[in-house]
Amino acid sequence: MTFYSAPLRDMRFVVHELFSAADELTTLPGCEDASEDLINAILEECAKLCETVLVPLNRTGDAEGCKFKSGEVTTPKGFKEAYKQFANGGWCGLTAAREHGGQGLPETLGYLVDEMVGSANLSFGLYPGLTKGIISSLSAHGSEEQKKVYLTKLASGEWQGTMCLTEAQSGSDLSLLRTKAEPNRDGSYSISGTKIFISAGEHDMVENIVHLVLARVPDAPSGSRGISMFIVPKFFVEDDGSLGARNGVFAGSIEKKMGMKAAVACVMNFDNAKGWLVGQANKGLAGMFTMMNTERLFVGTQGISQSEVAYQRAAAYALERLQGRAADGPIDPEKPADPIIVHPDIRDKLLFSRSIIEAERALAVWTQLNLDISLRHRDQAVRQCADDVVALMTPIIKSSFTDFGSEITNLCLQVFGGYGYISEYGMEQLVRDVRITQIYEGTNTIQALDLIQRKLNVAKGRLFNNFVDQLNETLDRLKSRNDLAEFLLPLKETLDLLISATDIIRDQALSDSNAVGAAANDYLRLFAHTTYAWMWALMAEKALEKAGGGKDEFYETKLHVGRYYLSKVLPVTVALHSTIRSGAAPLMSVDSSAF
Amino acid sequence: MTFYSAPLRDMRFVVHELFSAADELTTLPGCEDASEDLINAILEECAKLCETVLVPLNRTGDAEGCKFKSGEVTTPKGFKEAYKQFANGGWCGLTAAREHGGQGLPETLGYLVDEMVGSANLSFGLYPGLTKGIISSLSAHGSEEQKKVYLTKLASGEWQGTMCLTEAQSGSDLSLLRTKAEPNRDGSYSISGTKIFISAGEHDMVENIVHLVLARVPDAPSGSRGISMFIVPKFFVEDDGSLGARNGVFAGSIEKKMGMKAAVACVMNFDNAKGWLVGQANKGLAGMFTMMNTERLFVGTQGISQSEVAYQRAAAYALERLQGRAADGPIDPEKPADPIIVHPDIRDKLLFSRSIIEAERALAVWTQLNLDISLRHRDQAVRQCADDVVALMTPIIKSSFTDFGSEITNLCLQVFGGYGYISEYGMEQLVRDVRITQIYEGTNTIQALDLIQRKLNVAKGRLFNNFVDQLNETLDRLKSRNDLAEFLLPLKETLDLLISATDIIRDQALSDSNAVGAAANDYLRLFAHTTYAWMWALMAEKALEKAGGGKDEFYETKLHVGRYYLSKVLPVTVALHSTIRSGAAPLMSVDSSAF
Repeated sequence: MTFYSAPLRDMRFVVHELFSAADELTTLPGCEDASEDLINAILEECAKLCETVLVPLNRTGDAEGCKFKSGEVTTPKGFKEAYKQFANGGWCGLTAAREHGGQGLPETLGYLVDEMVGSANLSFGLYPGLTKGIISSLSAHGSEEQKKVYLTKLASGEWQGTMCLTEAQSGSDLSLLRTKAEPNRDGSYSISGTKIFISAGEHDMVENIVHLVLARVPDAPSGSRGISMFIVPKFFVEDDGSLGARNGVFAGSIEKKMGMKAAVACVMNFDNAKGWLVGQANKGLAGMFTMMNTERLFVGTQGISQSEVAYQRAAAYALERLQGRAADGPIDPEKPADPIIVHPDIRDKLLFSRSIIEAERALAVWTQLNLDISLRHRDQAVRQCADDVVALMTPIIKSSFTDFGSEITNLCLQVFGGYGYISEYGMEQLVRDVRITQIYEGTNTIQALDLIQRKLNVAKGRLFNNFVDQLNETLDRLKSRNDLAEFLLPLKETLDLLISATDIIRDQALSDSNAVGAAANDYLRLFAHTTYAWMWALMAEKALEKAGGGKDEFYETKLHVGRYYLSKVLPVTVALHSTIRSGAAPLMSVDSSAF
Repeated sequence: MTFYSAPLRDMRFVVHELFSAADELTTLPGCEDASEDLINAILEECAKLCETVLVPLNRTGDAEGCKFKSGEVTTPKGFKEAYKQFANGGWCGLTAAREHGGQGLPETLGYLVDEMVGSANLSFGLYPGLTKGIISSLSAHGSEEQKKVYLTKLASGEWQGTMCLTEAQSGSDLSLLRTKAEPNRDGSYSISGTKIFISAGEHDMVENIVHLVLARVPDAPSGSRGISMFIVPKFFVEDDGSLGARNGVFAGSIEKKMGMKAAVACVMNFDNAKGWLVGQANKGLAGMFTMMNTERLFVGTQGISQSEVAYQRAAAYALERLQGRAADGPIDPEKPADPIIVHPDIRDKLLFSRSIIEAERALAVWTQLNLDISLRHRDQAVRQCADDVVALMTPIIKSSFTDFGSEITNLCLQVFGGYGYISEYGMEQLVRDVRITQIYEGTNTIQALDLIQRKLNVAKGRLFNNFVDQLNETLDRLKSRNDLAEFLLPLKETLDLLISATDIIRDQALSDSNAVGAAANDYLRLFAHTTYAWMWALMAEKALEKAGGGKDEFYETKLHVGRYYLSKVLPVTVALHSTIRSGAAPLMSVDSSAF
């Protein structure tokens, strides 16, 4: 049984047929080359790399894990060589600017590459995923000198990027961080403090590691308005670009984790480590948010990547494993039993997975296409509009894709019965690996609060209103299409629920300061389903158009999976609306001492 | 932070206040001693043992795991000694009959003990849990000779019991099993075949292991009507009760699993192992079902046990961890931040957990009390009625408690943020350990099918009709209680949904042979919520009665947690009814080749 086969057919459907992405991308400055053919060629190249190089290291990487000794981290056997091959192929700098040694390719393509890499080997993919984030932050906030020194080496994959935020007492609440930055006479700073849970903080796959570190300068205001961002390289960089002395930043230990065992998480001790301020003092959170937003989308991609590979493995197993008989009579009387795909509950798990994955892939590509527009379009108004989409979708993608990532990997494990629980079939690793994605880069509740507290309040609700307009545009455009009514009616109902929930929460918030927090997670989930239902309506429209009168299995299946989503998944939105309506009182009325 | 503190207050509430169990139990033949005082004394003794002996072995057992070498299994350090202490305390034979060396105590008490043991150390608890099952099966189906030879040693914990059902090609579908049993001239059989996933199949904690094995005698009918059950001891038992030669049953290997690492799962090779038929040839499934029913209730207990300990740890952490500020103003302005218990989403996770756990504990005790009545009551009609309750509740308890076990351990892990994902805090172990409970003893879908295909069809729906009558009795009895209306109205609505869903599925089944399978999981979940809502109504009645006018925090909290359940959890039943109504078509319309 193949462990993973890149879903190129569905990727092409979404990118080319559903969104005609190449038509849009090739009009964007710097993306003129991103034709359908080029995109397809790169996807195929990436699929080959994932299937042949990264997949074989996934189970061994989990079994072996990272080793820590005297401050040094050894990655599992084969990782270093694979990383070199990956970097040499230009994959680390795929979306980085050409002037900084990148390929300058669109984020839309970057998403598809990240999805494949994540499916093949989630631990491996985290390393270039972090490098991608630091590139985005330095590109936006770094000085010309900083860009020159760091970006090319990061884009080439010779160096690794990290983000150093969390401290033992400061996790979701960054205002509590204590790491100090004392100014030196040469314009640099001396950084001292301890950061924890630092992914890729120390390892043996690259020659240098570049940390983006949050710390406080002397007399900085307390709280989150007194945080600055610094570059702290593991090895100093000489004027000629060569590596110099070792900086005072060391891994103190590494964590024993539930999963992601080949992606090291370090305690990092900064002991008068030399660092350079990025952007302005006390404005570091903004710079780090550029990296965080990149990473939040990336973590959402990690979620769908595990859903996809779990689905593929469970589907293959369900077609092969013989147990029981079809309820409407044996489909293979010669064999001792029928394949378990005949059983409705097995199909339920597989179709649930697929109906979520396919909607998510469409939503991700639409969002990334907007990201490309927001970064490159000539018209500022168009850029702003696209940026609004990305801002609104980022918490939804991070949170919903990863919640479903855990749910789907668990459902697909269940398809294997007892074989799912043992290590041999690889399913339990998927469950363990994906579990972190609900936590890091801001827990999923932090995302929900970002959506409901921040994103909904930008410019008097402009983001939300534009979103509603876009859905109404779809509903209007297709209102005479009887063949799409089965998709449009549920979409309309769900949108109505979302609008109603939004109003309810606003009303509740007038008299209850806990209303927003109480509703946040349910609201995000309701919002996510609204976007998924929308994607299904658009995909159904396209599938009907492409299928024509003929019976093309791909499009027929697309329509069936969409119908499954509407009848078996979407009804949960009614319950979500109901729990939102019940407000904060059921949560807050229990006294703390009673817990 | 204490890892686990036995929830004695809530246990006493359920057993004594809610169900007045001792009043009932002491009227049952053989249970006359089971007074409130005796029950309380045993619970306290058990709590002490769990907290001081079993809890300390939980993390080390996970880290060390079981070792396999040359056919022998070594359990983690300290397990053997703890098991001896456990057995010497009489805990292995707590509910076994006195004439077989047991304590003869009620199953109701046995449940509470199992819950505590499971919370303290799930892996450890599986060993006596299996012994309990084999005792129940041999007591019901064994010959007098077999009972005499085996039961006393099993009840004393000197010997261990196992159940050997699964084979590589025969998991959920037992009809496919191939292990052979050839009759010997002395009345015994020679058993040959390979069984997999055999918990406790081989280990070093006991002097003998007694396997209950399913196999086929020569010329047995194919399928599940040709299965016989045998006793196969690891060491033969001489006439004087001493141990003799080694039998031909050996562990071939042990599984590397996601969790439950101290509970060994073996491949067991039977190579002309000598076995003795239990009951009649070809009727072995009935005998094994006695054990399976015991184990299914036991696995449900494992589910709640992990929910309870996860809740306790998350609640303690939430009271201690300082991050962020309460939305309605700092509750502790002197400290750098408020404890995270102030945040609505943290409370949501904790209250979800607790509202499920408390309903489950009530449902479990009610079911076990019925089990005691079914086993001991003088009146056959009363026994039958109680047995009906147990039969109906068994799949619900097994499936729902374990599904929620996974959901709750994951929610509680999330409360810890990044600390939940690392091994140090023990939360990720809970998630890994409990995951198997959704799979073994019949996957949760097998339970759902048992409920909907078998239990609902017993004697023209007698079990279901009696259940509905019992709920209506509650609704009738309390209909004038305005102070309970907030509990009774949702209960009535949920019962109506359940009755409606039952009718819908029956109608669908007339024309669609896949209707029952398609609805099974959603139906079981809807049924479970109906029972939980019922338990909440009964608990609310009792809490109001006990609280009187005064403000007793225990009862006040009980009411709040119940209200939380009604407003934040129960609304999902509307969605379940909707997905049931949509039938099998959305699942079956996709061609197998499209997966």
